Amino acid sequence: MAEGEKYRQAGVVLEKSDMDHAVRQRRLADRLSESGIEGLLVTHLPNIYYLCGFQGSAGVLLLQADGRAPKVTFYTDGRYTQQAAEQVKGAKVVICRRKPALVEASERVQAINSATLGFESDYLSYAAYKELTRFLQGKTVLKPVAGAIEDLRAIKDNSEIERIRAAVSLASDVFPKVLDTIRPGTPERVVAGELELQARRAGAEKMSFDTIVASGTRSALPHGRASGQAIPAAGFIILDYGVILTGYCSDMTRTVHVGRASKAHRQMYEAVREAQLASIEAVRPGIEAGEVDGAGRRLLKKAGYGAYFTHSTGHGVGIEVHEAPRLAKGQTRKLAPGMVITIEPGIYIPGKGGVRIEDMVLVTESGHEVLTPTTKDLIEL
Amino acid sequence: MAEGEKYRQAGVVLEKSDMDHAVRQRRLADRLSESGIEGLLVTHLPNIYYLCGFQGSAGVLLLQADGRAPKVTFYTDGRYTQQAAEQVKGAKVVICRRKPALVEASERVQAINSATLGFESDYLSYAAYKELTRFLQGKTVLKPVAGAIEDLRAIKDNSEIERIRAAVSLASDVFPKVLDTIRPGTPERVVAGELELQARRAGAEKMSFDTIVASGTRSALPHGRASGQAIPAAGFIILDYGVILTGYCSDMTRTVHVGRASKAHRQMYEAVREAQLASIEAVRPGIEAGEVDGAGRRLLKKAGYGAYFTHSTGHGVGIEVHEAPRLAKGQTRKLAPGMVITIEPGIYIPGKGGVRIEDMVLVTESGHEVLTPTTKDLIEL
Repeated sequence: MAEGEKYRQAGVVLEKSDMDHAVRQRRLADRLSESGIEGLLVTHLPNIYYLCGFQGSAGVLLLQADGRAPKVTFYTDGRYTQQAAEQVKGAKVVICRRKPALVEASERVQAINSATLGFESDYLSYAAYKELTRFLQGKTVLKPVAGAIEDLRAIKDNSEIERIRAAVSLASDVFPKVLDTIRPGTPERVVAGELELQARRAGAEKMSFDTIVASGTRSALPHGRASGQAIPAAGFIILDYGVILTGYCSDMTRTVHVGRASKAHRQMYEAVREAQLASIEAVRPGIEAGEVDGAGRRLLKKAGYGAYFTHSTGHGVGIEVHEAPRLAKGQTRKLAPGMVITIEPGIYIPGKGGVRIEDMVLVTESGHEVLTPTTKDLIEL
Repeated sequence: MAEGEKYRQAGVVLEKSDMDHAVRQRRLADRLSESGIEGLLVTHLPNIYYLCGFQGSAGVLLLQADGRAPKVTFYTDGRYTQQAAEQVKGAKVVICRRKPALVEASERVQAINSATLGFESDYLSYAAYKELTRFLQGKTVLKPVAGAIEDLRAIKDNSEIERIRAAVSLASDVFPKVLDTIRPGTPERVVAGELELQARRAGAEKMSFDTIVASGTRSALPHGRASGQAIPAAGFIILDYGVILTGYCSDMTRTVHVGRASKAHRQMYEAVREAQLASIEAVRPGIEAGEVDGAGRRLLKKAGYGAYFTHSTGHGVGIEVHEAPRLAKGQTRKLAPGMVITIEPGIYIPGKGGVRIEDMVLVTESGHEVLTPTTKDLIEL
């Protein structure tokens, strides 16, 4: 099989797999009806993709929830005629020729005399909101809606889990190939470029975020995007990257060591590995997100690294690389089967270096399944 | 000199070059004072970078314009303590420990009893706007401001032009190396990956947008992001890509041909080249943006391709890859010295193929200067 053929073939099958858009739309409609909202204007593109499969970069989805089966219409412009015809499922497509999609969608709302129209308040700009109120001329009450679709998206259905599995597996396959390209003197950015080329060769659509390659003292930066700095002769390198395959993201981190690790570096690495395993062990339905964070954090505190674990333990991953739930101190949301989360504790000692280990984990009926197959043994290059 | 060393060294010099933040802040303050606005909350990150040099991903800039020298304060959180200290110029830095930056900035506004506070209405979400009004408790009038900073940014100063020159030059150096990697059967995405790796090797910070590699019939898509499709044995390939170097973007397109081009393909190519040269020829201070669009469009119409030129002629480029001005039909904004724009006509024949040629052009006192040095002769691979 030619290079990358495996995931390209898997991609073709997955693209055709049923995405249960009707179920998603009905669940959302039920939620809206409970809040007395008769329609929702969806403008956040990942939410549009979730509800109808459209992957272009302009459009508005109107979901009318009047108690019966939800009525869903997708408004876009002439640039996306062909793409909408190919991708949109479970929604009528309207190509807007003279007016912006948001205007046509709101005119439709007026025509059907909806009394209360929801809009995504976290994603609609103030300027667009004002434009919308002008068109509606006070005949429709606009109601801000936040997190409704994101809440649904936190629980993945089977077709989503299969897509995520494929993305995670592709990214993991890339890892050993990247290690071959790491040499002292190579700029971090070139390592990132080699990694991204390998991901493309394996069939990735694109990267899910700017690749992090943080070497030597830069490994002490929790978000050290690949820089022009050369890989040093000795020290940690944090590699944190993800791919998108059939619309879904992966996210993983491994920390490797150039040269032989000192005793202090080994201790750091082991402390993070144990904390990561402890947080993974805690993952099960019904546990609060904050408790998963606490399980690893307690171990790092006990080992004397508490002050150096400066971020939260993880986040949901799906259509977006950061989505609900958040795994942080104080988060009371309970984990539930179908959630896909990262577990990624780290310690960062300014001026010295840092370690982070990150897997993607599926919450199952009985506990959890670690999706990322890559070894967590310390690799010395 | 090691690979990429040239642009890395140039980058180090450019990063230290004076960015005239004080001049930018004063110009903005003058504009605001004219509109009776005493302060502006800047939340759009490229605008924050323009006004104070901060390149992180969270923060709020407050510019107070009370007639005297503007008072500028930048609010961010603990993650950016070091980065803000290194990057921020011409502004006092406040690290917010207990409250979000937007809240601390608005409390400051209340303390100084500003009557009218502007906010960026195109970039502040409705939800954030509502949060802000809650904090201000009606003591301050919020006034939407749109395009004020973007208008200033359209005219580049000398240090910006030098940075853009370096980014354009780096991207252009990459082009011949990419041609070596194009072979029938290679997926478009792998060509994109090779291109991006070469850009990283040459010292690019990152790409300025998702690389477009559109081959064969896909070249008829105006925005054909690199796909899994294999490069065909014959036909056009549109390569449209850009890099970021020292915070500024480049953007270029060349169309090459795999195998010998037919007479029809040569005609298409020549028509686009002539249209592109005609639009470039029209670029000078005082001309309306719409006229530059018209100069090339007329030629394509005359050659019988009018219906196939389905987008506008170009856009400004700077901190963002798409910024003011827009070069499209009906745009009356007059070009002015210091503007950096793209000129990128194209024709797209569905089911057959497409051609686009794009340069970056600087508007000078006496006319224009084409920044992109890459040949526009038709290359047959």
